[in-house]
Amino acid sequence: MSFSPTNDLKEIRNLVNQELLNFVAVENKYLNEIASELATVASAMERFLLDSGKRLRPLFAYIGFLGTGSKPSVEILRACAALELIHVCALMHDDVMDASDTRRGAPAIHKAFEALHKDQKLSGSSEQFGISAAILLGDLALVWSDKMLHQSGIDSQSLIRSLPMYDEMRVELMAGQYLDIYEQAFASESVERSLKVARYKSGKYTIERPLHFGAALGGANQSLFKTYSDYGLPLGEAFQLRDDVLGIFGNPDETGKPAGDDLREGKRTVLLAKTMELADAGSKAVIKSALGNPKLTLEDVNKIREIIISCGALAEVENLISSMTSSAQSALEHGEIDPVGKAALTQLLTIVTQRTL
Amino acid sequence: MSFSPTNDLKEIRNLVNQELLNFVAVENKYLNEIASELATVASAMERFLLDSGKRLRPLFAYIGFLGTGSKPSVEILRACAALELIHVCALMHDDVMDASDTRRGAPAIHKAFEALHKDQKLSGSSEQFGISAAILLGDLALVWSDKMLHQSGIDSQSLIRSLPMYDEMRVELMAGQYLDIYEQAFASESVERSLKVARYKSGKYTIERPLHFGAALGGANQSLFKTYSDYGLPLGEAFQLRDDVLGIFGNPDETGKPAGDDLREGKRTVLLAKTMELADAGSKAVIKSALGNPKLTLEDVNKIREIIISCGALAEVENLISSMTSSAQSALEHGEIDPVGKAALTQLLTIVTQRTL
Repeated sequence: MSFSPTNDLKEIRNLVNQELLNFVAVENKYLNEIASELATVASAMERFLLDSGKRLRPLFAYIGFLGTGSKPSVEILRACAALELIHVCALMHDDVMDASDTRRGAPAIHKAFEALHKDQKLSGSSEQFGISAAILLGDLALVWSDKMLHQSGIDSQSLIRSLPMYDEMRVELMAGQYLDIYEQAFASESVERSLKVARYKSGKYTIERPLHFGAALGGANQSLFKTYSDYGLPLGEAFQLRDDVLGIFGNPDETGKPAGDDLREGKRTVLLAKTMELADAGSKAVIKSALGNPKLTLEDVNKIREIIISCGALAEVENLISSMTSSAQSALEHGEIDPVGKAALTQLLTIVTQRTL
Repeated sequence: MSFSPTNDLKEIRNLVNQELLNFVAVENKYLNEIASELATVASAMERFLLDSGKRLRPLFAYIGFLGTGSKPSVEILRACAALELIHVCALMHDDVMDASDTRRGAPAIHKAFEALHKDQKLSGSSEQFGISAAILLGDLALVWSDKMLHQSGIDSQSLIRSLPMYDEMRVELMAGQYLDIYEQAFASESVERSLKVARYKSGKYTIERPLHFGAALGGANQSLFKTYSDYGLPLGEAFQLRDDVLGIFGNPDETGKPAGDDLREGKRTVLLAKTMELADAGSKAVIKSALGNPKLTLEDVNKIREIIISCGALAEVENLISSMTSSAQSALEHGEIDPVGKAALTQLLTIVTQRTL
């Protein structure tokens, strides 16, 4: 197959989508051969992938590869695309853990299978069936990610080189996810602790490690790994901070989640920790009683938004995002990166901190 | 490190345990470096591994390797031990899906973390926290399995050869698990369907695929793969049938689960399907109303045990186990397997169908 190298992000994303759909089509055929009852699993997996978004992890991995100056190929692109399936696992399991009913405006997987259980008038608890299905589909996505990487067609040496980064990324993801649920339950108000969760759960896993994975695939030297950390760590944190802002201030049409959903879920974000640091006693009490209340109205959400703005927390977080973005930019300028990769990473700075892709 | 090849099953199991503990000790140290809050995750993982049992999958993988006649090493043993961590994931997630409160006599992981949430007086739902933690620990175990395999120290060629089997095994496991929850919800009474679930969920994953994995590590020829299928598929089904019998007739001291737990969980086993085929209308009604009732008393369980025996279902299932075991034995006798492996596989015939290890 002919492959024209590109650093156009939209084009890469389209190629990633195509590879994912090709992979899933073959796997779904295989599931159907095992048993026709697996057709619902297969179609749910496909729909979930089709509905989804930015492919940030495959993008960063592929751009991380381009930064090494090695010649890309469809096999490399396919190996990078495999990272999206880890994210599918994370999202499916996350929605069970957060008891989130929707994902990108559609029912979350556990809700979809709960509905299937009801429609087919199956026996036992519909809710439990939905949760079980979402756990298993997430597990399957994690295994598929491995399979897609292993079968990508990249040479053995590149594969072997990439595995330590691939493993590290996933251990950090699971550790970060645990810290996240623990902080939420601990009802932490510490900015420092929230930043640590953001780093592991999201920052390293979304940006630094995918870049390292691509760098390993391309046989990068140690200096490039360091540049990618210097760029990826602050940008990853900025990414999570933007996520936190959108979780409270985002437009439901764009986030695919109800307005202020992070408040209903009681998420312990840096934005909230800053607010608890800066707001007066009365405002703090309002927020404490609202956090984790699933019945919060839009009016309640608006009241909290006002507190977050008026106490200066939003401005501080926006400043943090800006300064982290600057750090990332400066790392790019001082690092030795192939110009094709560098141009794409510069574009990605804006995209991940402003969510414009 | 010096390594004396052995086909003594207990000795192999001890070596597997040692490798697992070494791996987990290093990983736990790493988790603690990320955050001290992860210490509870680390100790729960270690305890779960220590408590656990037969290491059947590592054993079959290692014996599968010995059957190729290749020279074993501690690296190969370590690669085989990694399969146990897949099983840890399966068990942790299984207990959430079945809402089982105990595992080998100790609280299941979700119950242990539910208790931690209560003890530490954390905020939010203790039950939800327990479930979330069990999902994440299972995910982490699945990722650790990869990491342990990748870092085992086996040469790249062996690793690359083993990956397709490793992937296949895990896809089949997840597919089988889904079929299992679906059959349970579908309240199937079909012997054929129950056998299919048993094949994927347990048979292939416990015996055939681990043997194939070991065979691939040892660079086996196609004929050995076929012998392992001819041995592993019937033995795997016999293994699951024995499990079904123990799930209703087993001694709680040995199974680590309350007597008749499969009935309370409403499991759709071959044993129950056979009973529904053979029992009279009155007995069937008794069983239908009991299945899935978590409040079943020992007296209720005893009544159902009598039905299963008197209608002849138990005898039929015992016959099935015997005939499948014979098929497996005959495959061993006709296949070309290195004698060291063959001797161990003959021993394993008895162990998996009678649970004596």
